Amino acid sequence: MEIYADNAATTKMSRAAIDAMLPFLDTVYGNPSSLHFAGQQAKDALENARLTIARCLRATPKEITFTSGGSEADNQAIRSAAAIGRLSGKRHIVSDAIEHHAVLHTLKALEREGFEVTLLPVSANGIVDPAAVEAAIREDTCLVTVMYANNEIGTIQPIEEIGNICRAHGVLFHTDAVQAVGHLPIDLSALPVDLLSASAHKFHGPKGVGFLYARKGVRLTPLIEGGAQERGKRAGTENVGAIVAMAVALQETIDAMPETAKKLTALRSRLIAGLSAIPHCALNGDAEKRLPSNVNFCFEGIEGESLLLLLDDRGIRASSGSACTSGSLDPSHVLLAIGRPHAVAHGSLRLSLGEDATEEEMDYLIENVAQVVSYLRGFSPVWRDLCAGKTPFLL
Amino acid sequence: MEIYADNAATTKMSRAAIDAMLPFLDTVYGNPSSLHFAGQQAKDALENARLTIARCLRATPKEITFTSGGSEADNQAIRSAAAIGRLSGKRHIVSDAIEHHAVLHTLKALEREGFEVTLLPVSANGIVDPAAVEAAIREDTCLVTVMYANNEIGTIQPIEEIGNICRAHGVLFHTDAVQAVGHLPIDLSALPVDLLSASAHKFHGPKGVGFLYARKGVRLTPLIEGGAQERGKRAGTENVGAIVAMAVALQETIDAMPETAKKLTALRSRLIAGLSAIPHCALNGDAEKRLPSNVNFCFEGIEGESLLLLLDDRGIRASSGSACTSGSLDPSHVLLAIGRPHAVAHGSLRLSLGEDATEEEMDYLIENVAQVVSYLRGFSPVWRDLCAGKTPFLL
Repeated sequence: MEIYADNAATTKMSRAAIDAMLPFLDTVYGNPSSLHFAGQQAKDALENARLTIARCLRATPKEITFTSGGSEADNQAIRSAAAIGRLSGKRHIVSDAIEHHAVLHTLKALEREGFEVTLLPVSANGIVDPAAVEAAIREDTCLVTVMYANNEIGTIQPIEEIGNICRAHGVLFHTDAVQAVGHLPIDLSALPVDLLSASAHKFHGPKGVGFLYARKGVRLTPLIEGGAQERGKRAGTENVGAIVAMAVALQETIDAMPETAKKLTALRSRLIAGLSAIPHCALNGDAEKRLPSNVNFCFEGIEGESLLLLLDDRGIRASSGSACTSGSLDPSHVLLAIGRPHAVAHGSLRLSLGEDATEEEMDYLIENVAQVVSYLRGFSPVWRDLCAGKTPFLL
Repeated sequence: MEIYADNAATTKMSRAAIDAMLPFLDTVYGNPSSLHFAGQQAKDALENARLTIARCLRATPKEITFTSGGSEADNQAIRSAAAIGRLSGKRHIVSDAIEHHAVLHTLKALEREGFEVTLLPVSANGIVDPAAVEAAIREDTCLVTVMYANNEIGTIQPIEEIGNICRAHGVLFHTDAVQAVGHLPIDLSALPVDLLSASAHKFHGPKGVGFLYARKGVRLTPLIEGGAQERGKRAGTENVGAIVAMAVALQETIDAMPETAKKLTALRSRLIAGLSAIPHCALNGDAEKRLPSNVNFCFEGIEGESLLLLLDDRGIRASSGSACTSGSLDPSHVLLAIGRPHAVAHGSLRLSLGEDATEEEMDYLIENVAQVVSYLRGFSPVWRDLCAGKTPFLL
């Protein structure tokens, strides 16, 4: 059996999204900035896609700026808020310890430019405390940035509560919603969010495209300077085919969302229950407030990378944390932030389900993870010491 | 007849490039940062594409960083050189008046950050004088940036001479080669260039992808912060399918280049000769040192936009200048820089040929441009005044 259980890293493009993209590669291939028919055809398609995306999230088309993906959107959102802050001498930003590196590294860069950043801790199940956000906001705070749902442990943050606090204090609020858009219901006409980042390839759209929502009145600073595309907010010829495909994919996933969420929540429960039977393991993240597709466990006494490679041999494509840092030897900053010790954090496994997942696949995952964990523990000196009582079990 | 004569704005993807891309949308769709088989398949394809592109330009794979296009590459190249300059207190940049806005606007942004920019004039045929570059270089110059070939008037700059001057003075040299890569022979093992930007959709690859060449030892600063993709130089999940397609398109255009250049140069001559017969017009740019695909004329007494729209009705897709600024009412900064007065610069027409152009099409272009120019002049008050001797002819 082959199971792709790494949908948080990237997804397969849907058939409808591919079909929507194809004509723009060699038929309607004009540059949307060109005044002639070929250009205006492309321009119309671009603006229709913007309208579709805006409607999907109950925003207005002018609030949607297309980018090359989630990382660019995160960078631009944060840098735009920082630029607004600079104008009034506000150089303090509030965020949290489990953000994606597209957020954390941008904040680091801003620290080097004279900004001060407060990174809030999260609870043991990975939740940011809205009261802590409120306590951290100062006179000179220009931005709060808290992700909608975590890419590793799937935890869903209290975005509405945090947004209301930001609004009450007149502070801009950005949320990295890369894992949430297309997976959780989002209504921007009601949600108190000023800036929101999304990436198409997380919801069956193409790689290399995403968007940044900026509420009317929130001025974006271009990250990429040049032509007047995207109303001067993002230079470079628009990736028309990919943008059209993104709109189709988003509409499709949002239409299917109620059913998908129900189905995946049930499968997730089955998978969590099955994996919980493995001795000395623990679920990472919140049991309820988590993405329907996300399962993340720590297993004591093993290395996550070995686990992944042996599962790969059995046709299971999984991850130990975020794909963006998979080359790194450091344990996940998210798992450390929820209090997992280094040794335990190294033994993590993320399974992120696709919409076509089945019960049979869940059972295959449970059986094989249990077997591989047991096999790896069989020759782990760490596990031997744990069993011999030389070191205490942590899980 | 329908003629797409706006290949400098964007090109149709080649069949081979599309075919190369498709499998990566729904079959080999893994995230190249994932350790499992699906990820490693994508990673292999990504690195093979990098190798192909490096070989096409006689660079090494580590010198190629993938971006979302030419504008991003230009921005990153210039900002990286500026960051290197800052380290040693060098805050002066030399460029010229006919650069693309991706370069000019980035330089403007750097001026606001304390850099000083010298924009050199160009000759009447649009050439940057290498001696002027040398004279402009100061002790605190950190970068010279001069485009390889102009996007509006097709002029090819003396890149090798300028590069040798930069090297002699120990100054970094960037060239925006968006119009040149795939269209002119470029050998980076011999050319004294440190940074070079390219965009796939200008050579029959997809929109939304490009690359930045940075010679070994030239440190790139990320424009987009986040994950460790592209060896830490460009965050965000790599657009694998588009990158693979870009490599195929580049190989294809470079293989065909000798034949294409010969064919297009002949068609260009035919087109220039035919259009030159129209009274009171002038070729913009150099007659010899120009892209084989580029023809650009000014016609006195008419508005370029009306010309475009009437040509569009006759199936001819053309441009008045760069697509990136086509919404603007200002005349082209390039035409002003080569000395065209405002009134004349407004009456410009760029025809940029594709590889499949034919003699028959050239004749159709000549006939229709002549007819439309004559028709428009028929009710132009400016033209009437010119003919009545009330104002002098400028062309």
